[in-house]
Amino acid sequence: MDGRIGDISPPGRLADPADGISLEELALAARNHGLPLEALRYDLTPPGLHYVLIHYDIPAARADDWRLTVGGRVRTPLTLDIETLRSFPAVTHRVTMECAGNGRARLTPRPVSQPWLVEAVGTAEWTGVPLRLLLAEAGVEPDAVEAVFSGADHGVERGVEQDYQRSLPLTVAAGSDPYPEVLVAYGMNGGPMPPQHGHPLRLVVPGWYGMAHVKWLREITLTDTPFTGFQQAVAYRYRQEADDPGEPVTRISPRALMIPPGFPDFMSRTRVVRPGRVLLEGRAWSGYAPVTTVEVSTDGGRSWSAATLASPDEHGWAWRQWQASWTAAPGSHVLSARATDAEGNTQPLAQPWNRGGFGNNLVQQISVLCPQDG
Amino acid sequence: MDGRIGDISPPGRLADPADGISLEELALAARNHGLPLEALRYDLTPPGLHYVLIHYDIPAARADDWRLTVGGRVRTPLTLDIETLRSFPAVTHRVTMECAGNGRARLTPRPVSQPWLVEAVGTAEWTGVPLRLLLAEAGVEPDAVEAVFSGADHGVERGVEQDYQRSLPLTVAAGSDPYPEVLVAYGMNGGPMPPQHGHPLRLVVPGWYGMAHVKWLREITLTDTPFTGFQQAVAYRYRQEADDPGEPVTRISPRALMIPPGFPDFMSRTRVVRPGRVLLEGRAWSGYAPVTTVEVSTDGGRSWSAATLASPDEHGWAWRQWQASWTAAPGSHVLSARATDAEGNTQPLAQPWNRGGFGNNLVQQISVLCPQDG
Repeated sequence: MDGRIGDISPPGRLADPADGISLEELALAARNHGLPLEALRYDLTPPGLHYVLIHYDIPAARADDWRLTVGGRVRTPLTLDIETLRSFPAVTHRVTMECAGNGRARLTPRPVSQPWLVEAVGTAEWTGVPLRLLLAEAGVEPDAVEAVFSGADHGVERGVEQDYQRSLPLTVAAGSDPYPEVLVAYGMNGGPMPPQHGHPLRLVVPGWYGMAHVKWLREITLTDTPFTGFQQAVAYRYRQEADDPGEPVTRISPRALMIPPGFPDFMSRTRVVRPGRVLLEGRAWSGYAPVTTVEVSTDGGRSWSAATLASPDEHGWAWRQWQASWTAAPGSHVLSARATDAEGNTQPLAQPWNRGGFGNNLVQQISVLCPQDG
Repeated sequence: MDGRIGDISPPGRLADPADGISLEELALAARNHGLPLEALRYDLTPPGLHYVLIHYDIPAARADDWRLTVGGRVRTPLTLDIETLRSFPAVTHRVTMECAGNGRARLTPRPVSQPWLVEAVGTAEWTGVPLRLLLAEAGVEPDAVEAVFSGADHGVERGVEQDYQRSLPLTVAAGSDPYPEVLVAYGMNGGPMPPQHGHPLRLVVPGWYGMAHVKWLREITLTDTPFTGFQQAVAYRYRQEADDPGEPVTRISPRALMIPPGFPDFMSRTRVVRPGRVLLEGRAWSGYAPVTTVEVSTDGGRSWSAATLASPDEHGWAWRQWQASWTAAPGSHVLSARATDAEGNTQPLAQPWNRGGFGNNLVQQISVLCPQDG
């Protein structure tokens, strides 16, 4: 090794279909973590059960000397400490957040990165300042088209040394109708922001995959041209070939997840249920529009029946609960659930493959054994 | 499949050395999670960063109708609700907890189970009732030799359906000199017990690997013969062959971990440091006796030098901080740290293999690049 960063920072690759998960993928899976699916029972996911994906390290950030700057194409650049941010009117939004790479490890061939199965999700109440108030305070120049958000986490990715950065179109950042309010958040579930969720400040962009919710937020820059940084133009794009420009990853595709019924085998995670009536329940969400239908299959996807969906409430960007009843008979079963939203987006029964492994909302499959001997 | 539990609950096995991590192992790694190593910076590990290993599911437990029973070889069986437990004098102990399987995924051949690398550790302050007070209240019969602890998490493991159960010798359970006080804990880090750490009650056994700290604790039974349940007599034993009776896994072997210096490459997790002085720091612990020496190697284990260890404090069963200085020169380096305790227990440089992958305290190795171009 001749001592260049490129030597330790490999390009994106696909695993050979015969290969198991590599130790590098495992190292990511041991750091980051998903929602244990039984935790779908909680309306709000407690810290430690909410999924976490951290590209580099959790920064050693302190609230008392943290500064957020708002600059670029604004009339009055701002430098804000946490106390000042808390002096703005606070709002709290319940938001379901999901990693864009959720489902990646179920793809064939498997893109080599954080190897999520189906569990990279969580719902929290985030408290903070509406970003539109900060933009109004700074005064956005008429030629601004995007807001670029910079976090404090620093690392290398595919040879590029960087602070984590992402942008949003100005209309989305400002929460202009019909877009929901974007938050600069300093609290989670009524308490302080945990280190791994962005302490002391993070962005919250309802309806968007997690890569947009920049953690350890320290800089907002308004620009008059679209941002072309690594996480915008290289990573987080739907592409079939490495040299496609691809389409940007943005909003969350619909998904329903079921709480695995019964109890598990430790190693295979196969579920065991007793014969008779079993309540199937879970959550469903979409970043495009409210979920309007959840269907359940107990025969491996051959037939589907409608689940009962909780009534719409004020939390339009959070998951909704659903329930269905199943009479388990002795034998082996495969259970699935499928969500459809008000815009007609639904979940596929065949993998929606792309080279980065993004947005794989293939329906969940849960293997269940109902023992002969009861 | 003919519908028997044994069909979905495989026996223990070793992975073929050519095999990657299986999807079953990945499913465990996605549920359970370790300490991101930069979180070694916190004296007390926040929830969500502390390691978690859950054999089955997190039970849907509620504090207000929870009952703990103390029975078996006692004069007065007890049934205690949380309010009653809180009426006993409360104590708080700072304890470093580590999974007995930490390091398993670095073994060759690799035992197939939860695939930890080195990160299954955390330190918390646990608040609760000393178990000895409950035993005194119940009045232990003279013929009692063990206390058996039953949790509410229910599942199947290697064909055996079970509630999670473990025992301790009565002398350990009672905290008889020289053993530290065992707690029935209802609080963590000054707050309530999180669901994944055993809400509303768990056992805390300072110095022992995590399998002894039974979560979702609902029953304590004093017995006049040693407990032979699955987690005591089948799992958690050091054995070389499947049919060895083996030796029980008990206390935590010494380990030092270093906070990976510099910043990481996303995928390989290789670290990048600038040339010049680098502060190396981390934590060290042992379940046998206080750590007395930490040594650091920056040349892949060929030479070692002493690190500076924090002075002993009142937290005898928690990790101790250590620091060392290193002058990084351009090139590739492998950093390691090694702990030795007051009883002379230390960390091996060759893997201490056993069939369950327990107690692998092989020294950590961190790959670091110091780029030529600064």
